Amino acid sequence: MLSLMEINESNKEKLINELKERVEDADSSVIESVRNILSKVKSDGDEALFELTKTFDKVELTNLQISSDEIERCFDKVEDEFIEALKEAKINIENYHMKQKKTGYIMTEENGIYLGQRVLPLEKVGVYVPGGTAAYPSSVLMNVIPAKVAGVEEIIMVTPPDKDGGINPYIGVAAKIAGINKIYKVGGAQAVAALAYGTESIPRVDKIVGPGNIFVATAKKLVFGQVDIDMIAGPSEILVIADEKSNPVHVAADLMSQAEHDKLASSILITTSKKLYEEVEAELDKQAKTLEREEIIRTSLKDFGKAIICKTLEECIEISNCIAPEHLELMVDEPMSYLGLVKHAGSVFLGRYCPEPIGDYFGGTNHVLPTSGTARFFSPLSVDSFVKKSSFIYYSKEAILENGNKIITLANKEGLTAHANSVKVRLK
Amino acid sequence: MLSLMEINESNKEKLINELKERVEDADSSVIESVRNILSKVKSDGDEALFELTKTFDKVELTNLQISSDEIERCFDKVEDEFIEALKEAKINIENYHMKQKKTGYIMTEENGIYLGQRVLPLEKVGVYVPGGTAAYPSSVLMNVIPAKVAGVEEIIMVTPPDKDGGINPYIGVAAKIAGINKIYKVGGAQAVAALAYGTESIPRVDKIVGPGNIFVATAKKLVFGQVDIDMIAGPSEILVIADEKSNPVHVAADLMSQAEHDKLASSILITTSKKLYEEVEAELDKQAKTLEREEIIRTSLKDFGKAIICKTLEECIEISNCIAPEHLELMVDEPMSYLGLVKHAGSVFLGRYCPEPIGDYFGGTNHVLPTSGTARFFSPLSVDSFVKKSSFIYYSKEAILENGNKIITLANKEGLTAHANSVKVRLK
Repeated sequence: MLSLMEINESNKEKLINELKERVEDADSSVIESVRNILSKVKSDGDEALFELTKTFDKVELTNLQISSDEIERCFDKVEDEFIEALKEAKINIENYHMKQKKTGYIMTEENGIYLGQRVLPLEKVGVYVPGGTAAYPSSVLMNVIPAKVAGVEEIIMVTPPDKDGGINPYIGVAAKIAGINKIYKVGGAQAVAALAYGTESIPRVDKIVGPGNIFVATAKKLVFGQVDIDMIAGPSEILVIADEKSNPVHVAADLMSQAEHDKLASSILITTSKKLYEEVEAELDKQAKTLEREEIIRTSLKDFGKAIICKTLEECIEISNCIAPEHLELMVDEPMSYLGLVKHAGSVFLGRYCPEPIGDYFGGTNHVLPTSGTARFFSPLSVDSFVKKSSFIYYSKEAILENGNKIITLANKEGLTAHANSVKVRLK
Repeated sequence: MLSLMEINESNKEKLINELKERVEDADSSVIESVRNILSKVKSDGDEALFELTKTFDKVELTNLQISSDEIERCFDKVEDEFIEALKEAKINIENYHMKQKKTGYIMTEENGIYLGQRVLPLEKVGVYVPGGTAAYPSSVLMNVIPAKVAGVEEIIMVTPPDKDGGINPYIGVAAKIAGINKIYKVGGAQAVAALAYGTESIPRVDKIVGPGNIFVATAKKLVFGQVDIDMIAGPSEILVIADEKSNPVHVAADLMSQAEHDKLASSILITTSKKLYEEVEAELDKQAKTLEREEIIRTSLKDFGKAIICKTLEECIEISNCIAPEHLELMVDEPMSYLGLVKHAGSVFLGRYCPEPIGDYFGGTNHVLPTSGTARFFSPLSVDSFVKKSSFIYYSKEAILENGNKIITLANKEGLTAHANSVKVRLK
């Protein structure tokens, strides 16, 4: 099901461009209707939220916030083994992200000068959580835990209500385990607007994170600048590098684990073994039949699945670097010794027993990752995503007397005499 | 010249909204012409650059790169005291930014699991440097040094040619001192396009930084995603907090040091002393007469200058936090003891002898700072701006046998059976 592709200098570029072109762009009608929703919520606040929820979610609400009772009741609707697994995942994710916590610094000099940088948590963060059939409790943990570790005091979750005005119980449980206590039943572009501007019930935040449909993504783009946002995620990608010893059953299963996300998902096998490729092809067909999302998987593999055969593992990695995949599996012996060759990848899964879903759910690394080749310059969601830095500097009288004339020289050469003047008046 | 403003709960919000509204938005004709330039450069490469340079910069070039001879000749055209001051500034900026360098981490467990994060420098960075009258050599240092410290190997500078096809010698000197060796004579949206897509002469980069006019800023916004960009800076701001002991001569000089940047610049005085405010008013008028950019200063102070009188320093800082200024001066005794109250500010200048231009030119902190209230969630340009992170995880066979069922439970509850399958096939 994977199209076999020969790689040479001239089509490397094409490969990455194909991936980028999968990214869905909002058309002007979507932008227009999102603009309307934003301005409605900005001017009418809660009233607009009630009205838009009635229109889009087909439910009439009288209040937006979910009570703690309502959240407690979610636990009764959910299996114990799910709760236990999620709690263990939380600990792993927390432990991994704790190591990302940064502190500021200060430098002092003998003439009284001191300067440095503070690292401060954002005050308020909003987390968008999709509801309905695409409810992903794992996303709640991945978006909330780094913010918690960063020290964000107020984390506000928004999620669309179901037709009875309730929320998905798995989401409720995940929110409680992640440590959120403010959840509002509102979804779509109107939820993003509420977080960006604030309403009577919902506080304005400094940053909005979390996945959503094209309306949510467009709303996030439009409020960017007013607040910060996380990245806009494109369709998922997996790139598996495998050798002649790799198990084709494993390789096929891993390729399909991302293919099932979306018809636009991209699954790529790069291998040193033509035989492995042939065995994987047979396995894909065999295993696909057993999977719930068979149709999505087959479409995605047909449209965006590729296999590339290389002479060496080094060459496999070189091609992977051109693609800068969201997820990279290095299904080889001694995988750590190849990691230094990997220049661009969101998250790397090492060895023969490390399928990508370990990172989606449980291992501890974050599953919010750069897509569409942006791993060249973007990073996984992390504690750094929820802090800001602020610099400070002190000059003593002695220090400005010592250095003032140099500053005046530099300012004057840029034609900024008022800059120079602010130093001059202190040298008198 | 500052309009005196009383602050209460209802107009705090107004204050920050006024600042935000100063930000210039590109109109559709600018966007349209930038789009045309981008697509021309994308399809025609160097040829388009030569043609657009002829149109916009009125000069016919035959090659784009500046030779090392040409850069050396810049040194002959520039005063020694400028070169010395710039070299010393470079050392200060380098020392300050070196402390920002981050390393990755790894965690290991007894069952063979290991996971961690690598911090990798971006491979290629482009720095846009405006030419002509608004040539700021200090900007070259501020944009290039953090990238160098981060470990970026290829830093490519673009700057528009003058009418003789040369470049501003101060810019040439700054580029050499900062350690750039590839400079191209191209400016405007076409330079941004060249960096984003690559041409025959100019390499494609991963991130574009540096200030520019509305065409450059619009081009950066449009190529964002294709490459990363730094923030889009709004007009400059200074907020001075002063007490009854502050010297009105200093306060007035500092307010005008930002007012001279731009008619849209904002200078705000917040003080506990009405007497100081009155003395500052007199000083503003007196000093303005002596400054080259008097007209810009007067317009900016009249339109966006404000004075606010508070009862306590704590209250002054509280209002400053609502504004989240780009530059904050705390012109008080024991300023460090007030820093903890400052929640949102790009850079803070402490004490009575620390005017903001110390940070623009010489002290070591970065002068590329968040404007228009975005210091609530954005940070100064730093070494972090030029790295990306990449996570990795390894599971042993033992580890997946131990944890596999929990991962399967979580995946199944999200309806992602192909995710569950990739674990299942390894448990057999």
